[in-house]
Amino acid sequence: MEVKTAVSELKLLLGDRVSTSDADRFHHGNSETWFAAAPPDAVVWPENTAEVAEIIKICAAHLVPVIGFGAGTSLEGHTSAIHGGVSVNFSRMNKVLRVNDQDLTVQVQPGITREELNQELRATGLMFPVDPGANASIGGMASTRASGTTAVRYGTMRDNILAMEVVLADGRVIRTGTGAAKSASGYDLTALFCGAEGTLGLITELTLRLHGQPEAVGAAVCAFPDMQSAVNAVIMTVQCAIPMARIEFLDALAVEAVNKDADMGLPVQPHLLVEFHGSDAAVAEQAERFGEVIADFGASGFDWSAQAEDRSRLWAMRHRAYYACLGLRPGKTAVVTDVCVPVSRLAEAVIAARALIDAAGLVAPILGHVGDGNFHAILLIDPDNGEELTRAKSVSHQMVEHALSMGGTATGEHGIGQGKMDLLRQEHGEAVQVMQAMKQALDPQNIMNPGKIFS
Amino acid sequence: MEVKTAVSELKLLLGDRVSTSDADRFHHGNSETWFAAAPPDAVVWPENTAEVAEIIKICAAHLVPVIGFGAGTSLEGHTSAIHGGVSVNFSRMNKVLRVNDQDLTVQVQPGITREELNQELRATGLMFPVDPGANASIGGMASTRASGTTAVRYGTMRDNILAMEVVLADGRVIRTGTGAAKSASGYDLTALFCGAEGTLGLITELTLRLHGQPEAVGAAVCAFPDMQSAVNAVIMTVQCAIPMARIEFLDALAVEAVNKDADMGLPVQPHLLVEFHGSDAAVAEQAERFGEVIADFGASGFDWSAQAEDRSRLWAMRHRAYYACLGLRPGKTAVVTDVCVPVSRLAEAVIAARALIDAAGLVAPILGHVGDGNFHAILLIDPDNGEELTRAKSVSHQMVEHALSMGGTATGEHGIGQGKMDLLRQEHGEAVQVMQAMKQALDPQNIMNPGKIFS
Repeated sequence: MEVKTAVSELKLLLGDRVSTSDADRFHHGNSETWFAAAPPDAVVWPENTAEVAEIIKICAAHLVPVIGFGAGTSLEGHTSAIHGGVSVNFSRMNKVLRVNDQDLTVQVQPGITREELNQELRATGLMFPVDPGANASIGGMASTRASGTTAVRYGTMRDNILAMEVVLADGRVIRTGTGAAKSASGYDLTALFCGAEGTLGLITELTLRLHGQPEAVGAAVCAFPDMQSAVNAVIMTVQCAIPMARIEFLDALAVEAVNKDADMGLPVQPHLLVEFHGSDAAVAEQAERFGEVIADFGASGFDWSAQAEDRSRLWAMRHRAYYACLGLRPGKTAVVTDVCVPVSRLAEAVIAARALIDAAGLVAPILGHVGDGNFHAILLIDPDNGEELTRAKSVSHQMVEHALSMGGTATGEHGIGQGKMDLLRQEHGEAVQVMQAMKQALDPQNIMNPGKIFS
Repeated sequence: MEVKTAVSELKLLLGDRVSTSDADRFHHGNSETWFAAAPPDAVVWPENTAEVAEIIKICAAHLVPVIGFGAGTSLEGHTSAIHGGVSVNFSRMNKVLRVNDQDLTVQVQPGITREELNQELRATGLMFPVDPGANASIGGMASTRASGTTAVRYGTMRDNILAMEVVLADGRVIRTGTGAAKSASGYDLTALFCGAEGTLGLITELTLRLHGQPEAVGAAVCAFPDMQSAVNAVIMTVQCAIPMARIEFLDALAVEAVNKDADMGLPVQPHLLVEFHGSDAAVAEQAERFGEVIADFGASGFDWSAQAEDRSRLWAMRHRAYYACLGLRPGKTAVVTDVCVPVSRLAEAVIAARALIDAAGLVAPILGHVGDGNFHAILLIDPDNGEELTRAKSVSHQMVEHALSMGGTATGEHGIGQGKMDLLRQEHGEAVQVMQAMKQALDPQNIMNPGKIFS
């Protein structure tokens, strides 16, 4: 690895769009969770695909790692340069290239964030619904196969990308997919690069599916006597096929956190936060049916509203929930779990998680996208207390093992990153060898985000 | 290739579940379209995954090709043994292994057909909606990334498979995916094997998403003064986000064919066949909105019905449409095109296709799943007339080139098979090298369905 030579060549290519300053390096090597900072040797800001291809060619020639960087909101340490290298910041490739309003698709560069994209779409009557909470970049969301609050209705990134442009580990530029709504033409490379966490190439353009902004939107919160009732209400809602746009769970401790953070004044009990999309009549019908379902589970305080302000306040609170939870132990950080189980096993999984957390003596609110069977425990820890970190990691591992025993997955939406490499093997067994064969075929020098997904 | 030794070893393993009879060989090497029959050297009927693994190990040891066989309804010659080898018939692996009604999923063996599956699900209130027309096997549908009439509402096979068990080219058995509704855990191997046309491994088990049988179903036909009006009505319907369960196009010649075949008595004009799913109120609302849309395009005869008999007759007719079209030239066969374009370009694509067909002096009804931008011309040809076949292939190629120029794909749902290998390259360019790298990594001896997708 000849980083210095690579950086010199990058400076010839990009001029002052290369930085080796400590501030830039540390910002890009940092993480929103417990992972130790691992700064890259340099940060670059390309402005187009050709520059990304040149950057990768230079890095490939000198065996220097290449790490994509979007908004830095990964919870699994995806952007840390654990083997050094060059962080490729996509913030200057953040344009909407074309809205195809007749086809309900949009072509974008990867650096645009989901909020920026929806801002640009506002006047078209269309929206890009995938919402992982954080204002992540679209390229990052594609790379981690992100989903979040609306996946229960609109699907995950996997379901909402039609086509991509990708720069491979040797600088070749390929296109996956087309503008057609479906295709049976060869291997599904779009799906291969979506969720590859930057380990097979860098995404430089995406064609996304759009959806019409709903005519009407209704939102509500409701409280439950206990966790089991709340989760069972979710299971029943899914089975009744009420087409929820969002159905989010907060346990009592998470409610305490958001009350404190956003002055919500909710009763300190498990809650569901829900949203309905459709025509006025459809929203009213869905809300009514949902109200009937939750009544059987002892719900209280259900009072849905079609007011935009009420809704904005609700989802602003939900979007800040991670930071609100961190606020329960100021100055501390978190190990964030992300299991996803078959919905029928959800109550069992959440209750077992709570028992594990309590037995370990940890403080950890639980919240999640329960319509998909996906939930998170925010295990709050002191980063300087190694023993506490060990306990939190142990809880996280046990939660995953429990989820796997139920036919679930180690990660519903955050990805493997640095934190779950051993669990990948536990989940997939011999199939990991197939993944490694893909990696070996496309990145034989292991320069694309090394140390993520596979050790 | 030592086929004889391999067949002897297979007989030791499977006894009389190995056949080398001409009848069996020709049945398995045949095709529903124009491809020349290419019989395998032997046909085997495994009863479980372990047997499939042993079969592949034997074939791998002797470099004998392995070709999966479901219901034999492929339109791109997928099951022909163009390099000889062993056809693996999955008809004895056709069980429903488990219905998870709380999770809306089902585990099945690959040999079950979609009609058999829905028959078994009938009492559960659930259904597997993907409907390519033919009564194909689920394994075959997964292998070609099939879709069909209901994809506009329920998605394609890609969207409806959660997990699979796959036997690789060296006999290793892997599992892709889990029972969770979503996952961000490693590369998306489910998507890799779905649509791989048996060139990377054989699928031996699938976990499918199910959907509730709709409370109410409405269906209708309507006639249009010309092709452009019919297709523009579809485009507007899609843009109005009416959640059509089915929206099928038949041109006047296709109507003539189904009239003749099923005594439908429809006016010989372009038609749309539609279906609405939902609650009684939702179906009525959708039908009313659709009626308003098509009125602007000169539609006539729209009279929707919630009667099951009317609907059955309608879709039985549609399902037989391919055979009805063949009946326009008895004793002949067909080159079936399968382009899919962005919906906004659909009218242009269909009109250009009709012009190409007419200029070539061919007889070819056009029909398709137009809500997705996917349509088929059934180019009727005399298999013994080489010049006619050449003309038909030329029309097919020009249709694909036109579709690609519009941002479309060479195949919406039939796959590449034998017929579109050159077009794969035209569509994907350098990305084909990535596909070949996958193939090389997973099947270095090229024994899995050789001569399909890649030449």
